[in-house]
Amino acid sequence: MKIDLNCDLGESFGAYTIGQDEEMMKYVDSVNIACGFHAGDPLVMMKTVEQALSHGLKIGAHPGLPDLQGFGRRSMAINSHEAYSIILYQVGALQAIVKAKGGTLTHVKPHGALYNMAAKDAELSQSIARAVRDIDDSLILFGLSGSELTSAGNEAGLTVAHEVFADRTYQSDGSLTPRSLPNSVLHDADKVEEQVMRMVKRQEVVTANGEVISIQADTICLHGDNKEGVSLARRIKETLS
Amino acid sequence: MKIDLNCDLGESFGAYTIGQDEEMMKYVDSVNIACGFHAGDPLVMMKTVEQALSHGLKIGAHPGLPDLQGFGRRSMAINSHEAYSIILYQVGALQAIVKAKGGTLTHVKPHGALYNMAAKDAELSQSIARAVRDIDDSLILFGLSGSELTSAGNEAGLTVAHEVFADRTYQSDGSLTPRSLPNSVLHDADKVEEQVMRMVKRQEVVTANGEVISIQADTICLHGDNKEGVSLARRIKETLS
Amino acid sequence: MKIDLNCDLGESFGAYTIGQDEEMMKYVDSVNIACGFHAGDPLVMMKTVEQALSHGLKIGAHPGLPDLQGFGRRSMAINSHEAYSIILYQVGALQAIVKAKGGTLTHVKPHGALYNMAAKDAELSQSIARAVRDIDDSLILFGLSGSELTSAGNEAGLTVAHEVFADRTYQSDGSLTPRSLPNSVLHDADKVEEQVMRMVKRQEVVTANGEVISIQADTICLHGDNKEGVSLARRIKETLS
Amino acid sequence: MKIDLNCDLGESFGAYTIGQDEEMMKYVDSVNIACGFHAGDPLVMMKTVEQALSHGLKIGAHPGLPDLQGFGRRSMAINSHEAYSIILYQVGALQAIVKAKGGTLTHVKPHGALYNMAAKDAELSQSIARAVRDIDDSLILFGLSGSELTSAGNEAGLTVAHEVFADRTYQSDGSLTPRSLPNSVLHDADKVEEQVMRMVKRQEVVTANGEVISIQADTICLHGDNKEGVSLARRIKETLS
Repeated sequence: MKIDLNCDLGESFGAYTIGQDEEMMKYVDSVNIACGFHAGDPLVMMKTVEQALSHGLKIGAHPGLPDLQGFGRRSMAINSHEAYSIILYQVGALQAIVKAKGGTLTHVKPHGALYNMAAKDAELSQSIARAVRDIDDSLILFGLSGSELTSAGNEAGLTVAHEVFADRTYQSDGSLTPRSLPNSVLHDADKVEEQVMRMVKRQEVVTANGEVISIQADTICLHGDNKEGVSLARRIKETLS
Repeated sequence: MKIDLNCDLGESFGAYTIGQDEEMMKYVDSVNIACGFHAGDPLVMMKTVEQALSHGLKIGAHPGLPDLQGFGRRSMAINSHEAYSIILYQVGALQAIVKAKGGTLTHVKPHGALYNMAAKDAELSQSIARAVRDIDDSLILFGLSGSELTSAGNEAGLTVAHEVFADRTYQSDGSLTPRSLPNSVLHDADKVEEQVMRMVKRQEVVTANGEVISIQADTICLHGDNKEGVSLARRIKETLS
Repeated sequence: MKIDLNCDLGESFGAYTIGQDEEMMKYVDSVNIACGFHAGDPLVMMKTVEQALSHGLKIGAHPGLPDLQGFGRRSMAINSHEAYSIILYQVGALQAIVKAKGGTLTHVKPHGALYNMAAKDAELSQSIARAVRDIDDSLILFGLSGSELTSAGNEAGLTVAHEVFADRTYQSDGSLTPRSLPNSVLHDADKVEEQVMRMVKRQEVVTANGEVISIQADTICLHGDNKEGVSLARRIKETLS
Repeated sequence: MKIDLNCDLGESFGAYTIGQDEEMMKYVDSVNIACGFHAGDPLVMMKTVEQALSHGLKIGAHPGLPDLQGFGRRSMAINSHEAYSIILYQVGALQAIVKAKGGTLTHVKPHGALYNMAAKDAELSQSIARAVRDIDDSLILFGLSGSELTSAGNEAGLTVAHEVFADRTYQSDGSLTPRSLPNSVLHDADKVEEQVMRMVKRQEVVTANGEVISIQADTICLHGDNKEGVSLARRIKETLS
């Protein structure tokens, strides 16, 4: 059994630096690189692709809503044409950079509000899945485990990776607790490790309400926002090995 | 002898409509589609690509400076890394859209201030040419006839199209008269036709100062900003046929 | 009885022109000028302020969501701090321009999705009303007639103008039929005039479902998107006189 | 003799944090707050204004070029109308926030490339000075010591503060060594202190070429990008006291 570890990276922008990208690259298998709408810019994307290639990682696109100030975390009422077109645009932009640097784009993972909206919205998910397939049907679509997005990916004939989150808490319906709520993120490293191991071994998770729900864990998202995130990544990498 | 006629298109944005795109597509061979930095957005790019494909036209990317308010016409001091990365980004975005719609991207033509800056700046031109080559070395690079950009394209091993302008006036050094000057654009249709025929037949142009300079005319840029532009395009198309 | 006629103006941006601003200024009393987030830019704002002052009109700010591509018509999940701050920012920017040109800002009318979200959301409306009051408590707040926004304005101690729409259809709860629905806009000039006269004389409107609901009409919004809008404005102006 | 110490602050944006704002506020007299074009956003501006007011500091606007990705440091060819309008817009936005929070805007200092372009360009400087005066003629204009900007401020009837830089090196003509050059910034705290003391006591500075040029020092700019900047600020504050 091999579990993929992934991290959202390349979220710096212009003069602004965010994330422990180089540190996280030591512990993950796949990176999801921001594409300039919610974070990232052409220079940052290029630099991040070069780093990821030098670490031999799988490179994915991490397209988001066109909302830099909100970091793509504010829901926006976009229609399916808009969704389809912003996926083509962002994934295409990153794919060209990856190709120019001698690599191959392997997967796509929508970001933030787009990811969470898609998890519950079949039509939006179908637009996203069709866009990914129309770019390259060998791209793997990362979506919240058991969500509309993974279903739409399957329907579109894409390979799908059910994603679980190491340090985010879950609701009874399998959605993530919104970041606006106080208990959305697990801060205790032991709890995070426990959640990860349960997801991997038993394919289940304890929700914020204490229920146990089943979950498919093809890839685990780790966050590299700070030093704690990096230590946690190292610990989970070691525990899983 | 076959002269290519091209037009900059897809410059609408969101609720804003600009240009006589569908009309112009009847008279040109190649279209250069804006890529979202100086004009255009993912939805507009998608719609324009669909129209161009239905007209059987050659589709090129028209990347510009990141300056929507200035329509990419204000010079900006970008360095070669920035130039390289914004070309990769924008051309990649459009290429993905073209591919998703079943077409093939054929060429790249920088826009506005980026085009004019590159015409005189060897280092900037080399960055642009390298970016185009690193995306796909079969892409044709459109540049101002006899400029640093066409030279850099040749050096990078790209096929190059020397571009001339039907309705723009020229300086003694072969550069375009800046749009900030009153005589930058020819408004008289007879004069435009005369300039075009001279460029095509004799490979020369009369500058704003009355000098005759030699010029290579592989492709002619027509403007579709208004109805006059459309009639002019029809007339030039007919005269050349 | 004096009914105020208002129009949203100054929505051009950079090279993009939209709206029949100068024509509409002949027929309305108040103009609501876009502030650069959903439309407009500093130069357009300045030019529009100059035109409005030369027509002796009341000048209001028309702040919107930070979404130029969506023209501020896509709902976005902004919190009350964000709402408060973007009102201060946009209204302040326009107020400075109005003052520099020798005028006085008289009112504030939120735009598009922000306006419609506020109409139903008491907390959002309170943020907006507080921001307007904190800039200048003599500013009049325009809000959808009988909405949460007009209530919040009253609570904040502001003078409020209940706004009705000449050419938009209404739902039973007094909200506007969303633009995404086919019957959101009245296109028949006779119907528009009939709706306006009924609103003004009887303070009521017939909803899209045929119900009659009561409505307070302090100011009537006219649209100047095209020539039909201009003729309609002239007609309504004449009928009301 | 009282020398004003100032710092550029409020340059965070959305999810991105930059600068040691709260630390620097302990050591400076005046803060220049970014206005959303090159850095800052409405929420950041609001929070920074609140902090500055609680420290009893003089609050100025720090307007820049519309280039968030380039942090306003890339020269752009804007004309005088554009310059005038972006100053009105940005200063007005910040002024409204300051007023809403109970304070008073005291000064304006252009940022980055706009500041450096203005230093050498009389026409651009006149546009900026007129915009500041047209907002409020009691605002103090900060400009590079002995530059076109301070001259234009004087001509416009504004009070002017000649600004010097603690840790930037100077050219023979009194301009700052461009940031693109290796020796643009002094990194040795002793050298910085020496330069500051010489500026304050003798009104002169040693240029990068070793020449001594005279300079007027009304206000000294300190940088709070990192912890070294903070210690330096504390040290200079103490030395000057």
